[in-house]
Amino acid sequence: MMTKETADLNLNALFIGDKAENGDLYKRLLTKLVDEHIGWRQNYMPQDKNMISHEEQDSPAFENTVNHMESVLDELSQRIRTESVPWHSAGRYWGHMNSETLMPAMLAYNYAMMWNGNNVAYESSPATSQMEEEVGHDFAGMMGYRNGWGHIVADGSLANLEGLWYARNIKSLPLAIKEVMPELVAGMSEWELLNMSTEQIMKALVKSGNRLDEIKERSARSGQNLQKLGKWLVPQTKHYSWMKAADIIGIGLDQVVPVPLDNDFRMDINSLESIITDLASKEIPILGVVGVAGSTEEGAVDQIDKIVALRNKLANAGIYFYIHVDAAYGGYFRTIFLDENNEFVPYDQLPELHQKYGVFTENKQYIKRDVYEAYKAFDQVESITIDPHKMGYVPYSAGGIVIKNIQMRDVISYFATYVFEKGADIPALLGAYILEGSKAGATAASVWTAHHVLPLNASGYGKLQGASVEGSHRYYDFLKDLHFKIGERTIEVHPLVNPDFNMVDYVLKEKGNDSLADMNKLNHAFYEEASYVKDTLYSKEYIVSHTDFAIPDYGNSPLEFVKSLGVSEADWNQQGKITVIRAAVLTPYMNKEDNFYYFVPKIKLAMKKDLENIFEGVRAKQLS
Amino acid sequence: MMTKETADLNLNALFIGDKAENGDLYKRLLTKLVDEHIGWRQNYMPQDKNMISHEEQDSPAFENTVNHMESVLDELSQRIRTESVPWHSAGRYWGHMNSETLMPAMLAYNYAMMWNGNNVAYESSPATSQMEEEVGHDFAGMMGYRNGWGHIVADGSLANLEGLWYARNIKSLPLAIKEVMPELVAGMSEWELLNMSTEQIMKALVKSGNRLDEIKERSARSGQNLQKLGKWLVPQTKHYSWMKAADIIGIGLDQVVPVPLDNDFRMDINSLESIITDLASKEIPILGVVGVAGSTEEGAVDQIDKIVALRNKLANAGIYFYIHVDAAYGGYFRTIFLDENNEFVPYDQLPELHQKYGVFTENKQYIKRDVYEAYKAFDQVESITIDPHKMGYVPYSAGGIVIKNIQMRDVISYFATYVFEKGADIPALLGAYILEGSKAGATAASVWTAHHVLPLNASGYGKLQGASVEGSHRYYDFLKDLHFKIGERTIEVHPLVNPDFNMVDYVLKEKGNDSLADMNKLNHAFYEEASYVKDTLYSKEYIVSHTDFAIPDYGNSPLEFVKSLGVSEADWNQQGKITVIRAAVLTPYMNKEDNFYYFVPKIKLAMKKDLENIFEGVRAKQLS
Ligand SMILES: [Mg+2]
Repeated sequence: MMTKETADLNLNALFIGDKAENGDLYKRLLTKLVDEHIGWRQNYMPQDKNMISHEEQDSPAFENTVNHMESVLDELSQRIRTESVPWHSAGRYWGHMNSETLMPAMLAYNYAMMWNGNNVAYESSPATSQMEEEVGHDFAGMMGYRNGWGHIVADGSLANLEGLWYARNIKSLPLAIKEVMPELVAGMSEWELLNMSTEQIMKALVKSGNRLDEIKERSARSGQNLQKLGKWLVPQTKHYSWMKAADIIGIGLDQVVPVPLDNDFRMDINSLESIITDLASKEIPILGVVGVAGSTEEGAVDQIDKIVALRNKLANAGIYFYIHVDAAYGGYFRTIFLDENNEFVPYDQLPELHQKYGVFTENKQYIKRDVYEAYKAFDQVESITIDPHKMGYVPYSAGGIVIKNIQMRDVISYFATYVFEKGADIPALLGAYILEGSKAGATAASVWTAHHVLPLNASGYGKLQGASVEGSHRYYDFLKDLHFKIGERTIEVHPLVNPDFNMVDYVLKEKGNDSLADMNKLNHAFYEEASYVKDTLYSKEYIVSHTDFAIPDYGNSPLEFVKSLGVSEADWNQQGKITVIRAAVLTPYMNKEDNFYYFVPKIKLAMKKDLENIFEGVRAKQLS
Repeated sequence: MMTKETADLNLNALFIGDKAENGDLYKRLLTKLVDEHIGWRQNYMPQDKNMISHEEQDSPAFENTVNHMESVLDELSQRIRTESVPWHSAGRYWGHMNSETLMPAMLAYNYAMMWNGNNVAYESSPATSQMEEEVGHDFAGMMGYRNGWGHIVADGSLANLEGLWYARNIKSLPLAIKEVMPELVAGMSEWELLNMSTEQIMKALVKSGNRLDEIKERSARSGQNLQKLGKWLVPQTKHYSWMKAADIIGIGLDQVVPVPLDNDFRMDINSLESIITDLASKEIPILGVVGVAGSTEEGAVDQIDKIVALRNKLANAGIYFYIHVDAAYGGYFRTIFLDENNEFVPYDQLPELHQKYGVFTENKQYIKRDVYEAYKAFDQVESITIDPHKMGYVPYSAGGIVIKNIQMRDVISYFATYVFEKGADIPALLGAYILEGSKAGATAASVWTAHHVLPLNASGYGKLQGASVEGSHRYYDFLKDLHFKIGERTIEVHPLVNPDFNMVDYVLKEKGNDSLADMNKLNHAFYEEASYVKDTLYSKEYIVSHTDFAIPDYGNSPLEFVKSLGVSEADWNQQGKITVIRAAVLTPYMNKEDNFYYFVPKIKLAMKKDLENIFEGVRAKQLS
């Protein structure tokens, strides 16, 4: 058994493999686990007779039913093989936040599913409930929370909704305290009540003693005061999950305030400050601010440290806001900064740590200082969304949330009682502490197993993040100098920004044609060639995703880039959007120089074919 | 291949089996599917070289990593086998809503997981998105909706929350229409606006043309008018998922009104009527009414037909309310009423239909007329929660929701645009039409496969429901006459009510001791003996679940039963609750007489041992 210290983890041993190189290994381990389950069934009360007799198994009805089941499975198999996305491919898939998932996570899911535990209640899943509790502690440790608590959520949208639920109910508590126990907040104005810090509120709750339930009853959960709680500030791109969340939680879209982005597609901190101080000057409270790490369209990492610093600064002016970090995508990236003791290392010691564990194959500094500072400050925010099914390389559906202070969970809970079972501090009914109800114990088993195979620091998950990040930099460098000759035309490739994390966006442009409309048409046509839209996925030699940066969502943050392409500001204003090809580079194989350059000519050839199809199509139309 | 008409489905061919009788079959089918996946990986771009070399696979780091992974999987396996619940057991497990799950559903999940599609977007999961759309149509067909739409949800709590989201946003639309296009609701008072029927509101929306988005913006999603929408009526038991839902959705707990239960633990329709007319007399609108089929603690089926009839009657008085049916538990039971053409059959033709497909092994009428009428009326309500991971025998997490009118989804959606891909009317971004975001394509594959193996009528799923229902009646009949001699004492067993569906509750009582406190103590002690609380689960010969009926949640609906036990009303009022042993009988094996009576002496013996442990413990204490 490897220890954290001696671990020389070989990432390639943890995946089935692009070409199923470890297919036999997967089958061997799967068979062993299935046999262990079968043995367990056979030996639970071995004195009981079989319910299904051999005679019945030989009967025509039984055989017909098996044949029928096999026919349905054949259809399933045929449909899935025809229309699934080959994101396991090492060098062919450059699109969404997907790649291979971890073999141990898949095996654990398959295994635990045979028992089908339900983590809604400890009683329905003693083994996997305990694992979910441990995963929650893992999340807290990963974020630097000393007294945190976390759990698995079906997905990041729900985790974000739960974060907003926390923010809303916590923000409303001082008004409820004033109603139930005014002595605890004597002399405070409504404005002051609505600007109490989360820490102050938690302290007041402790003082409320046995009147906690009464106070909770008068909190936002009663339905009162929702419109008093103030504004919810999100990045201007307003990912629709935040619009949905504000809708569902009842504060409403009218309370959502977009904060402009800077030219790196991060939240603009100056704009954030002026929005907040402007609202405060009108005595409009700030319910909270959402920072993102990284964004779904650019992988941009908001400067969480600066949001925290702003909050500290404004505290002097009597202004407080909740901070939720949406790190659904980039949450696991924090492991790259953690040493064997799960301590966040000083910036100048990163290269040494990374060299020790072979996090990067080359001695390059891929990690920007400001991204480092952003991650360092995670331990200062109230709650964080983190999705194991993204950079945790665990199969869907495995999202997660973690809160800074375990006491916070009492604010949204529906039972005050705990059951302390077998030494673990696990809620008897987890469903009363979270947004969801029934949930697969298999998911907890899956995440737990992944976390135990890969330590949550630079020696394990950090190394896997590193492979992905290094691959994205190789891809970025490759695209930077790329161009194609298609007949008389030259098609240039222009990457957007040097990635904060592992996402690379780029646009294709015909040299000499500065029309944004033409450029958007070209990029959309390219996306169609290099996606499921045309032909079958199984025949695609290169697959991408795409997105649009439109003014309502982005303001002028893309303008600097747009201008660098030769497009005029007037044209930008007229078109109102730029279509971008988007690649989240999650593959664990493209960090190695050999592998990457093996695929370079193949990618070039595939891109060239796609462009030829596009321009031949145009030419054909022009001729007809 | 079997057709719907000729199907003589052998249910025992569809499960791994209590004693893994079909373990070899499971392994054969699983291996075939894994091989098909491996072949798919190998043959996607076969010209590409392997990323993982044989040399690397032989390296010490690779081998160490595999060893490490195997050690973690060993620990996983050990923990899961030690502390999981044996609900596959045919005759030993009589507790929660669990049993074996369908082999084809497990296989499909395992298979699809290897591609790890994400049904949030069609692009990320063409095959399984199509399957989820088909499953949605299945749900609609099962409920009798001609123009319905449905989708998979992580669990029933979330589906209920989504139902409330629908109700809240729809109810608010007339006020929004009045703001944006007053001409569409000219002359209507606010009271009239808040009592428009869902059908009228949908018609008005059609007339709004291109101003639909403006109207939606002024609906409850804006955050305005939430407190005007009125009361949300739920059964008095107030399952905590409804309290959470009212909290999260922002209408608040103050708007939740409990409706008393009758002595059969169903919503009392007279009380419902008087609550509604009383509220209406104060001009307080009714946001909606939740009917349950069946309840989580008793399996009771609310009389949906009578709720619908009440709504029709009150329409004459200008009162309208949304109806959501929480059939998370009992939704699939509706298939028992559907013939080969998925038509709801007349009551007097049920025996013939059931005989044709061998739904029951005995010629008994297990289905109550009023339960039949309740299910028949499902097609009259706006939305229904249905959980494949309960009576669909599909592994967690697979819940679902279905709406009567596909147009309703526009009310909560975040995009108005559809992409019509390859002939299917599937949203390009499902995440914009539902509460959740990322979701496992594997779940859709799993439910789809189950639905194709078992037709959604009496020939398939209905037969499986029948096995469960018949088993529950055998169990109820067995308990009715059961008593034990423990030393000098006689311990009687008293079942609660003849089951509406497949749940059997009962209490143990020492003959001659009418103290409710003693009875509760006995039943709680019995639960501890027959559950994970004492010793290891793997050694338990009989496993149950339990619940408390407490006055705040149940009022006096248990009183009739309590009195029948000899307990005085004064004692009931003093204790305030009765502890009940609870068995959801999902096992597909206990319908057969032979099987059931094989286990009867084993169950009796195990119960007797548990009782002896309890009373020996008491005696020991008395002696000490
Ligand atoms: Mg995706």
